[in-house]
Amino acid sequence: MRTTPTQEDVRRNNLGTLLRYVHIHGATSRAELTTRLGLNRSTIGALTADLAAAGLVTEKKGPRETGRAGRPSLVVRPESVKVYAYALNIEVDRLRAARIGLGGHILDRREAPRPRGMQVVDAVQPLAGFIHEMRAAVPEGSRYVGAGLAIAGMVRRADGMVRLAPTIGWVDEPVGDALVERIGDEGPMIVGNIADVSAMVEHTRGAAAGRDNVIYLYGDVGVGAGIIAGGRRISGRGGYGGEVGHMVVNPQGELCSCGSRGCWETEIGEYPLLRLAGRPDRSGREAVLAVVDAAMRGDWVAQQAVRQVGDWLGLGVGNLVNIFNPEAVIFGGTLRDIYLVAAAQIRSRLNEVALPACRDEIRLRTPELGRDAALIGAAELAFERLLADPLV
Amino acid sequence: MRTTPTQEDVRRNNLGTLLRYVHIHGATSRAELTTRLGLNRSTIGALTADLAAAGLVTEKKGPRETGRAGRPSLVVRPESVKVYAYALNIEVDRLRAARIGLGGHILDRREAPRPRGMQVVDAVQPLAGFIHEMRAAVPEGSRYVGAGLAIAGMVRRADGMVRLAPTIGWVDEPVGDALVERIGDEGPMIVGNIADVSAMVEHTRGAAAGRDNVIYLYGDVGVGAGIIAGGRRISGRGGYGGEVGHMVVNPQGELCSCGSRGCWETEIGEYPLLRLAGRPDRSGREAVLAVVDAAMRGDWVAQQAVRQVGDWLGLGVGNLVNIFNPEAVIFGGTLRDIYLVAAAQIRSRLNEVALPACRDEIRLRTPELGRDAALIGAAELAFERLLADPLV
Repeated sequence: MRTTPTQEDVRRNNLGTLLRYVHIHGATSRAELTTRLGLNRSTIGALTADLAAAGLVTEKKGPRETGRAGRPSLVVRPESVKVYAYALNIEVDRLRAARIGLGGHILDRREAPRPRGMQVVDAVQPLAGFIHEMRAAVPEGSRYVGAGLAIAGMVRRADGMVRLAPTIGWVDEPVGDALVERIGDEGPMIVGNIADVSAMVEHTRGAAAGRDNVIYLYGDVGVGAGIIAGGRRISGRGGYGGEVGHMVVNPQGELCSCGSRGCWETEIGEYPLLRLAGRPDRSGREAVLAVVDAAMRGDWVAQQAVRQVGDWLGLGVGNLVNIFNPEAVIFGGTLRDIYLVAAAQIRSRLNEVALPACRDEIRLRTPELGRDAALIGAAELAFERLLADPLV
Repeated sequence: MRTTPTQEDVRRNNLGTLLRYVHIHGATSRAELTTRLGLNRSTIGALTADLAAAGLVTEKKGPRETGRAGRPSLVVRPESVKVYAYALNIEVDRLRAARIGLGGHILDRREAPRPRGMQVVDAVQPLAGFIHEMRAAVPEGSRYVGAGLAIAGMVRRADGMVRLAPTIGWVDEPVGDALVERIGDEGPMIVGNIADVSAMVEHTRGAAAGRDNVIYLYGDVGVGAGIIAGGRRISGRGGYGGEVGHMVVNPQGELCSCGSRGCWETEIGEYPLLRLAGRPDRSGREAVLAVVDAAMRGDWVAQQAVRQVGDWLGLGVGNLVNIFNPEAVIFGGTLRDIYLVAAAQIRSRLNEVALPACRDEIRLRTPELGRDAALIGAAELAFERLLADPLV
């Protein structure tokens, strides 16, 4: 705010604020927007008219509010059917794609298993195929905003290069560029980390809505975190922050794929759980769910496995709680399943490790948006540009 | 930016920006301020006049710039002699006080040892005494801004309550209020954590100036961190973030004062170093320095002790680097002394533990402001209000 912003600067900023509000909160009456955004009725009216003219929102009469005289307030909704982004996920064992409307609505989706060891070229092909299929069904008059890709790996913020995705087996792969080549360049393809985008979605519209200090843990073979501190995502110098799976918690422990020893993911990832449960030949989310089910049914070996993993999970969460003093920790991916059956073990160990002041306001949660958080979060990467300046 | 800010809003904001610039960077020519702040010459002139009238800056002719015609640019300096704050530090084994002028200049200082086990009432008395002594020497016409206290403990952001200072031995002590009672209420007394305020000072004017992702480690008996991510301090929900000393790194390790086992500070604090060096009956910074000196002189036992502590230090720093992907790690307190003699060991272990992408732009540093960072940082707690709105 070095020089006085012009009326036009203020208007553009307000347009973004209003559009972001309905994008996150859904249909909202003009009366409520007036209150929430602190703007007067005529300004809200003018902003809504501009956004409607641009095809980004629609307005219609809402229900008459009981006990209030006068006309019912108009309700502003995001144009969820016509304004859309593509969202792509590359997980250890799944490839997923969706077409997602403004407001975070999944309009169409596709999914395929990803065999371990699948190379970039082989993953790009089916993902591009999904987009071609979904594109064929897009209604006339729709507006494409862009595409987002979330991957279980470390992504360089500057250009979206996948620096390292050890559980997927990729190093220095320009996956986004490879996708754009197959899809046809229709707009930006923004690449992000799967835990980061899931964290942002659970923070804006999920299990941690309204909370400014949040740790979202995502587990499969590896473990990563999306961390929100003071309302903003921790990304670090190059975009690689949140690699909590490589926090050493057991220096006398197992060798890790990263070359270090006793990393957190060597104690709480999919492999140690399956090994402890006596199923070292299995892999994948279904195998993890089978152990969790067996534990719930009273299988002693499965119970012991889940308890030991839960103990290490609680220890590492305790470490993070001491570092971040968060309000919420969310267990995503396979850690969700482990949390559901080992919550008491996790909480008990967490309470031993975390200082009372750091943990006294903490809530442990599962994701509200489930596995869709990663898809919706990938779309957010694309929507973000629109929300920053809706009329560009 | 919901409604258009008034000219007056913009002016106050610019006054704060200009005063903050000279507070951090010292005497600056009007020409350079024009460039740095992106404001035109007449605006800089008007802002400077306002700040000078309020007694916050002075102006005088600078040296003529070589090779440039015309009048030499006026140089704007912070009023470091007349505008001041009190700064207090409560460390494990020292009590320190200073009178600090705008711009971060130490104008006067006092220091006393703090015997282990000293209670709040006994610590408050000498600190208040220091302030009474320094106050007697304040020149006529000076302006007192407020006081800041930095303590090696966990401080509740809401009210400055010291929730837990285990190495000092205090629990739930309203130390700030106790000090105000003794000093006389002349203005706000803001309380902060010693690692946090040191981190901010090294970030704004020290070893990490210009870097947005910084971890400042402070060690004595315990270990804490001030963490800056994306240019902002991580404080967490209640203000308790940064308790890295209680990150469990060795679950089979020693019991910690917090009740947990294998916390990082049980491996890198003052006690394990002295124990490994065969000096379990000693304590304090001098004892740590004696071990470091012995190691440098070739004492084998001291070398082994320093090497082992350095190894654990590198491991924990590696964990933090994976979580934060920072540009700089600064070793403060007794960790500075250990870093100076064990840098190779620390770096080697850090490289094993931290992923290449997370560590590839990292610099390991000692504090530029040394132990004064904690005093200057305590004063910043008080100056912050002035900088936010200089003419209030």
